[in-house]
Amino acid sequence: MGKRDVTKVVLDEKEIPKQWYNVVADMPNRPGPHYSSRTGKPAEPQELEAIFPKSLIQQEATTERWVDIPKPVRELYHQWRPSPLYRAKGLEKLLDTPARIYYKYEGTNATGSHKLNSSLAQAYYNKEEGIKRLATETGAGQWGSALSLACSHFDLACSVYMVKVSYDQKPYRRSFMHTFGADVTASPSNKTQCGQKILEEFPDTTGSLGIAISEAVEDAATHADTNYALGSVLNHVCLHQTVIGLESKKQLEMIDEYPDIVMACCGGGSNFAGLAFPFLKDKFSGTKLRAIAVEPTACPTLTKGKFAYDYGDSVKIGPITKMYTLGHDFIPTGIHAGGLRYHGDSPIVSQLYHDGIIEAQSYAQKEVFDAAVKFARTEGIIPAPESAHAIKGAIEEALKAKEAGEGKVILFNLSGHGYFDMTAYESYFSGNIENIDYAEEDLKESLNKLPQID
Amino acid sequence: MGKRDVTKVVLDEKEIPKQWYNVVADMPNRPGPHYSSRTGKPAEPQELEAIFPKSLIQQEATTERWVDIPKPVRELYHQWRPSPLYRAKGLEKLLDTPARIYYKYEGTNATGSHKLNSSLAQAYYNKEEGIKRLATETGAGQWGSALSLACSHFDLACSVYMVKVSYDQKPYRRSFMHTFGADVTASPSNKTQCGQKILEEFPDTTGSLGIAISEAVEDAATHADTNYALGSVLNHVCLHQTVIGLESKKQLEMIDEYPDIVMACCGGGSNFAGLAFPFLKDKFSGTKLRAIAVEPTACPTLTKGKFAYDYGDSVKIGPITKMYTLGHDFIPTGIHAGGLRYHGDSPIVSQLYHDGIIEAQSYAQKEVFDAAVKFARTEGIIPAPESAHAIKGAIEEALKAKEAGEGKVILFNLSGHGYFDMTAYESYFSGNIENIDYAEEDLKESLNKLPQID
Repeated sequence: MGKRDVTKVVLDEKEIPKQWYNVVADMPNRPGPHYSSRTGKPAEPQELEAIFPKSLIQQEATTERWVDIPKPVRELYHQWRPSPLYRAKGLEKLLDTPARIYYKYEGTNATGSHKLNSSLAQAYYNKEEGIKRLATETGAGQWGSALSLACSHFDLACSVYMVKVSYDQKPYRRSFMHTFGADVTASPSNKTQCGQKILEEFPDTTGSLGIAISEAVEDAATHADTNYALGSVLNHVCLHQTVIGLESKKQLEMIDEYPDIVMACCGGGSNFAGLAFPFLKDKFSGTKLRAIAVEPTACPTLTKGKFAYDYGDSVKIGPITKMYTLGHDFIPTGIHAGGLRYHGDSPIVSQLYHDGIIEAQSYAQKEVFDAAVKFARTEGIIPAPESAHAIKGAIEEALKAKEAGEGKVILFNLSGHGYFDMTAYESYFSGNIENIDYAEEDLKESLNKLPQID
Repeated sequence: MGKRDVTKVVLDEKEIPKQWYNVVADMPNRPGPHYSSRTGKPAEPQELEAIFPKSLIQQEATTERWVDIPKPVRELYHQWRPSPLYRAKGLEKLLDTPARIYYKYEGTNATGSHKLNSSLAQAYYNKEEGIKRLATETGAGQWGSALSLACSHFDLACSVYMVKVSYDQKPYRRSFMHTFGADVTASPSNKTQCGQKILEEFPDTTGSLGIAISEAVEDAATHADTNYALGSVLNHVCLHQTVIGLESKKQLEMIDEYPDIVMACCGGGSNFAGLAFPFLKDKFSGTKLRAIAVEPTACPTLTKGKFAYDYGDSVKIGPITKMYTLGHDFIPTGIHAGGLRYHGDSPIVSQLYHDGIIEAQSYAQKEVFDAAVKFARTEGIIPAPESAHAIKGAIEEALKAKEAGEGKVILFNLSGHGYFDMTAYESYFSGNIENIDYAEEDLKESLNKLPQID
């Protein structure tokens, strides 16, 4: 095995990508355009300009294969990039599998997840266009933390609407954002009309990403100096994350490896996109490769949702997008993987799934935590509950490889650590982690409320 | 400036030290031997063998300059070492100082602090000698976390006595240790005679490192398959930490720098030792260099303590050691920097301070948190409250350099991150961080109770 008998593959700093890879350039069918929730027609640039800077609107629509990473963003990437690629030797041994399992670890930066790859870029572009404040939503708190730090670097104010269930479950995430000067509000809140409307109708709601997005979008749309920033789903966010896969390819090349399977957890889709898209580039040229998005059974957007136009937010003020969706009214149960509780999915990831280019799997909460603890004890890193979905998927594939006696190469994205999720782990050890799924009735109902776009 | 205009200095994996540096070999006056608390005479090896493996007892006494790092330990070091060295450009800019500030960041490993450097070595040596379980104490939880993970790697059971104030303040640290399979007990506890004795006398005590050490030592001494592991103070622990300074020297060399000042926070002394000792090697050969240990005013061992023989633990069952001490009865106030709440100090660090080779400074809690938040906002890393003492010290030295118009080079050890200390930060932002110092009366009293040795 020689070269592959490694614990960690370290890439030289000179190899930090200088360009992001835009998978849209190579897709057989491109994602549909965003529609306006006001007019029901394709969104005009000026409509998007109320909440996004021009440069990001342009990135959202570009079909160029490579997009330059601005120098100030790249300089900040140097703080922690290239991130390490590990071979999961401990886990392989535990599973007694002939598969070789690798993981790219995005948790070594200050905010502990991949989200910083995009938040730095978004803060930079907004600053360049004279914006003073960014409003955003956060589920698990990873995106809010990442945007808080990015705003601190570029001297922007930052307002975070945090899904109520996470706000209560993760007080430390709040304090984290406070440390970087952000203001954090439990969503739904009385600060916005959207929030007030939801609270009137559902006073006991635990909130959802869809609602928090509505609040942040309204905040941005009603303040001239304020823009909105989204931590996943949109094309430009997926674009920024491709540094993950681009580095991983180089790291595997260094040890003469190429993956049979790449996997990542999938909520809005950005960390999956980040790892998988650069490998799909090869797949489009004929390389054999499986790319698998792993989601929770409690919020099974790809595996149980519908490929249709839908609102990205619950109060229907943001753009309408063609994607896999559970319906904008769908409110997932309060699983600990708060970052995967989104009713929709990236339009690009959705199109790729629809076209059979990528696969999807879903797992229930308890088996995911079983996998997380197995991983922690063998690899020494406590994973975020979101990332643990990728671990569960990788373990399943490694066990299949064992059954078949095949030395498969599996690469997954460990998108973040679980330092801020210790209450979830404590619940697990106390036997209080439940498999709480959705009600079929609720899903049926919310799928009946999709907007009619051609 | 050229070469020095960097954000981060990355060292190749091949440069991970193969040997630890033993400063004792070069000291003009060596630290005194450990005495037996039972006989009042120099401790016999067989007495120490009740709680330590032979290999570590040998390391404790060795005067060899270099000690080989065992291959299995070195392989685990590869998981995160070499750790990055950063130039604190953001902080320099904020302070508008001509000083160049660098920091070695030991928080990138799974347990978030430098402690893993020694816990892996200690678990390894104990495993080699057939031990089944390690008992230890932990203050802030960093050492307990590091030993839990190390025991998980080497398949040893792990029992952690956690100082009560930290046990209550840091529930997430407990869950962290549970994740790696350790059992965690609030100290003082009813599990040991030492704990029972303290609880009878002081039922409301918040605990101290001194008490928790007594409990862990008793646990080890009364179980044949169990040894004791200490996270700081002892010579072999300081030895294991020297990988920090050895790497830092190479990293500074890469950019043609050499420090005028090296600084680290100092509780038991191991992270200070780790950074400073390899530089002291140069100082002993005539290089000009200041090495400064930074401690809290609430537990000012070097700056206000006495250089004398004292018990290392509160219940007087562990070895007696010549060191700076506040008295084994001294119980510091419940400051958030739990890792610095130890009444004594490393015998080596103490001897060096006594001989005027190193300096010491102390700072109060509030000004330390001011510095921590300044650092977080400019450098993007939330420091552990312990490590923030080094930051405060570095800021003060950088401001002095500014006043003097001198381009000093300052290197400090950022020994760990503050992800598990967010309640402390939340207190800070709510205006609830107080400067709680010791009472002069208490100190006087506890200094009156030192044992009479020679």
